[in-house]
Amino acid sequence: MTTTAAIEPLAAQPTGLPDVERRAVLPAGFVVGGVAIGIKASGRADLALVQTTAGPAAAAAVFTPNAFAAAPVRLSQANLAATSGEPAGRYGWAEAIISTSGSANAATGPAGDADQAEIGRLLAAATGLDFTRLLHLSTGIIGTRLPLDKVAAGIARLAPTLAATDDALEAAAVALRTTDSVTKIATTTVELPGAGGGPAVAVTVSGIAKGVGMIHPRMATMLAIVLTDAGVDPDVLAGLLRPAAARTWDQLSVDGDTSTNDTVLVLASGVAGNGPIEAGSAAAAELGRAIEAVSRDLARQQAADGEGATTLITCQVSGGLDDADARAVARAVVSSSLVKAAAHGRDPNWGRIAGAAGNATVADAAVLEAAGIARDAAAVRAGSPAVLDPDRLRIAIAGYPVFDGAAGGPLDFDRAAARAAMDAPELLIRVDLGLGGGTGEAFGCDLTQAYVIENSEYTT
Amino acid sequence: MTTTAAIEPLAAQPTGLPDVERRAVLPAGFVVGGVAIGIKASGRADLALVQTTAGPAAAAAVFTPNAFAAAPVRLSQANLAATSGEPAGRYGWAEAIISTSGSANAATGPAGDADQAEIGRLLAAATGLDFTRLLHLSTGIIGTRLPLDKVAAGIARLAPTLAATDDALEAAAVALRTTDSVTKIATTTVELPGAGGGPAVAVTVSGIAKGVGMIHPRMATMLAIVLTDAGVDPDVLAGLLRPAAARTWDQLSVDGDTSTNDTVLVLASGVAGNGPIEAGSAAAAELGRAIEAVSRDLARQQAADGEGATTLITCQVSGGLDDADARAVARAVVSSSLVKAAAHGRDPNWGRIAGAAGNATVADAAVLEAAGIARDAAAVRAGSPAVLDPDRLRIAIAGYPVFDGAAGGPLDFDRAAARAAMDAPELLIRVDLGLGGGTGEAFGCDLTQAYVIENSEYTT
Repeated sequence: MTTTAAIEPLAAQPTGLPDVERRAVLPAGFVVGGVAIGIKASGRADLALVQTTAGPAAAAAVFTPNAFAAAPVRLSQANLAATSGEPAGRYGWAEAIISTSGSANAATGPAGDADQAEIGRLLAAATGLDFTRLLHLSTGIIGTRLPLDKVAAGIARLAPTLAATDDALEAAAVALRTTDSVTKIATTTVELPGAGGGPAVAVTVSGIAKGVGMIHPRMATMLAIVLTDAGVDPDVLAGLLRPAAARTWDQLSVDGDTSTNDTVLVLASGVAGNGPIEAGSAAAAELGRAIEAVSRDLARQQAADGEGATTLITCQVSGGLDDADARAVARAVVSSSLVKAAAHGRDPNWGRIAGAAGNATVADAAVLEAAGIARDAAAVRAGSPAVLDPDRLRIAIAGYPVFDGAAGGPLDFDRAAARAAMDAPELLIRVDLGLGGGTGEAFGCDLTQAYVIENSEYTT
Repeated sequence: MTTTAAIEPLAAQPTGLPDVERRAVLPAGFVVGGVAIGIKASGRADLALVQTTAGPAAAAAVFTPNAFAAAPVRLSQANLAATSGEPAGRYGWAEAIISTSGSANAATGPAGDADQAEIGRLLAAATGLDFTRLLHLSTGIIGTRLPLDKVAAGIARLAPTLAATDDALEAAAVALRTTDSVTKIATTTVELPGAGGGPAVAVTVSGIAKGVGMIHPRMATMLAIVLTDAGVDPDVLAGLLRPAAARTWDQLSVDGDTSTNDTVLVLASGVAGNGPIEAGSAAAAELGRAIEAVSRDLARQQAADGEGATTLITCQVSGGLDDADARAVARAVVSSSLVKAAAHGRDPNWGRIAGAAGNATVADAAVLEAAGIARDAAAVRAGSPAVLDPDRLRIAIAGYPVFDGAAGGPLDFDRAAARAAMDAPELLIRVDLGLGGGTGEAFGCDLTQAYVIENSEYTT
């Protein structure tokens, strides 16, 4: 049953991404702000605005795949499509973002669409910007209408006071929050080639986000706004955002539910003065890594702030036949209720990890395609089980090798020490599939009694 | 936001299946038994045997898709393949079933395979039956070897005492249990055409099962044995079992995890004397309905006995573009942690149901194909989101219409009365997609603090 054969440790995988700081740094080319306008009964900040200072910014977006996409999601998609001609609304041009918190404006029917359009008209009037160049986010209670009078008064009050300061970005991040216990901010800097063969230019990529497990009736879980002063065309920017989101937000699970309002927006002001960024170039890759680094860090902050969570669970998988398999296994592990409960109990339970891995299913064709995984492969692999060989699988929990298929399976290890190592704000689960070069990671949190209490005792 | 427009109630959907009783009725052609042999530390019954009395029975099986299939699963597949020539081991001939409980013999490597083969040899020697005509089940702790000395002594003690009585079937059902809080049995009777144009013959279909959420390190969740005295060829029987399982056990979710040992076996002794049953005939359909009725009832008993559960959740979906969509939505609803927690809080939370429905993904191609859904459709639809139109969706909770997309969305309803109606051993959630004739149902249970406690505080 057990063996004492030494196996090489499964170290944490390097991400290859630039370092990130968790502080507010506003990139050039934007003014921002956040205030309380009374949508939330608590009186907390609930309106955020972002506006460009140098004309239209290149914009790219990822929206919820939920069939019940909320009114702000649909309006943002329509506006992006209108400015770019790209029918799905994945990229375009934008000059402002408005985010309301407290009501999701979801499942509100035609009246909700009319409300969101009215908000667009109010913002257009207040800023002098074109209606189609405004993007919309909202989060909060579903099935309730937004209080248009409060939003109108809020726009009139906030729009003239937007500031190009880090504090203003922090205020906007605070205004995104619903049940978040902390404000979520991340920033990084990379160098891009300068314009006209000039010296390299430092560009900043900063993100703010909200998101925890859905809490009724606040379904609108996850929003993120990423701002950069880099200059890049919208279609190239969208080509950088989608795979970055596939490796980060698509690999985030708090309770397995998705929401009606999930949205990630990236705006690039172009003020930094970098040279042109062509798709597939080294400069594009560098900007993509910066966007991914910020996305990854925000996703990890979101996982760590999952409802009732006491531990961030990161599952890193190597040795997959391809990245799709490795990601599928990582996602299955952090999504398993049994793994999540074991993490909460600080139980080095390799059996549940193996069981969850054995249950992994490759993402659907749309996700694979969006992530840049070849269409042929997608057609064959989508929806199929990930390829695993139990005799090659290795598992390490919090640095302790616990299972090695090639060595007969379960390994002897110091359970007390492993339990102690698991009692930390972050738990790393490493899985090696031993089959190929595919890698992936996913982020989740432990399942606690507090989660159940919060979600079952909240009465409507 | 709300409307008082009356909408037609969403009544429970008729299943079209014969009635089922929850008592032990042993079909003709079998002797059975169950005893305690000391695998379980608790001293509870842990060895069950089934043997045919009239030669080989037609056998059909459904096994776990988990990549970590346990040794008994692999040996049963190999034996079925050996007796039928069907390479996947989905059907064949069998004369006995042995089930051990307390150790799953999973993740035990080559030694575990050797142990299971030795059990086959011991049983063959004790019964005089061919090794390949023995089917194996096991459930319990993973990563531990079976105590062969105890199993050998148990076989020697139990095999000579097998009886053709209902009490013996009950004893076998008890011996299947691990953490089950109740013994799970179901039986039904249908009439099939007699042999040679003779009068109709009553045949009995009875099933026993074990299964709750996986509890560490007991991963081996769900086992079922269905016995019938009907006469039917193995391939026809397999053709009846697979769609029945697709509509019942494949739609069962306790915590979303599957296990290494999940197995459903159906044995048909042929003693009843019915006429030949051809695939696609009315007689085949009638036998199929009986198998499905028993499968469905056992699956519902399993859902109701989910770890920590206080309520069985049944989600019935109508109006799907096809059955695959309807089943996907039903499965998504009963699998949602948020719906499960709301059910526990007796919270008529339509937002979570809509959100879960909007998140539904059609099953993978293999499941669709196994369920008899056209291959062309499978290629297009597998892994894709279920087709929904929020403006046509209707939801009723415990009989209360709560959402009607065509009527603007949320409906006014008596929340206190709905909460009271939800406070019952069973909760019916009805969803109508309003798009077509597709129907489906799924079975789950509420998510409780007890589940988290059981699964996080159980230390290894």
